[in-house]
Amino acid sequence: MFSGVSLVGFAAAICTTASYVPQLYKVWTTGTAEDLSLHMLLVLATGLALWIVYGIMQGDAVIIIANSVSVALLLCIVGFKLREMLAGHRAKRRPATP
Amino acid sequence: MFSGVSLVGFAAAICTTASYVPQLYKVWTTGTAEDLSLHMLLVLATGLALWIVYGIMQGDAVIIIANSVSVALLLCIVGFKLREMLAGHRAKRRPATP
Repeated sequence: MFSGVSLVGFAAAICTTASYVPQLYKVWTTGTAEDLSLHMLLVLATGLALWIVYGIMQGDAVIIIANSVSVALLLCIVGFKLREMLAGHRAKRRPATP
Repeated sequence: MFSGVSLVGFAAAICTTASYVPQLYKVWTTGTAEDLSLHMLLVLATGLALWIVYGIMQGDAVIIIANSVSVALLLCIVGFKLREMLAGHRAKRRPATP
């Protein structure tokens, strides 16, 4: 059904994609993404999006699927980070109550 | 010299590989990797190694080079983590001085 190459690709994809899950779980449960660098997350998201483009150009389904799942998980983490940053900005602009 | 596909692949590789650098820099400067999960690092290293095997099987130089650099950076982080864990074990086994 699947070639040996596809199976190695799927195993690689599962490992690298699964590694985002503990980070997302940590951000979700602690409710903070303060220690994560937004620049690092955006560079990584850009890279994963480019891997999807590369997979499409090469006609490589393993690369397309693996990086699509990874970028979806990563965008959830970016969402948490941006929400936290916006909340921080609003708190700074609100005048102090007596 | 390079095809459009290769250029997209190189750009993707540079972005995803570059994202390991700030983490390695942080571990190097702070001297601690306590907040990093060893299981996550090992799953990620396994995944990157499998991507190298996949690249070799597909004859895809971009995948081979990108993941080789990533796994080298990641193994430096794993080295820090293991050194820290071993130091912790030794400190626990040492009898308390009066």
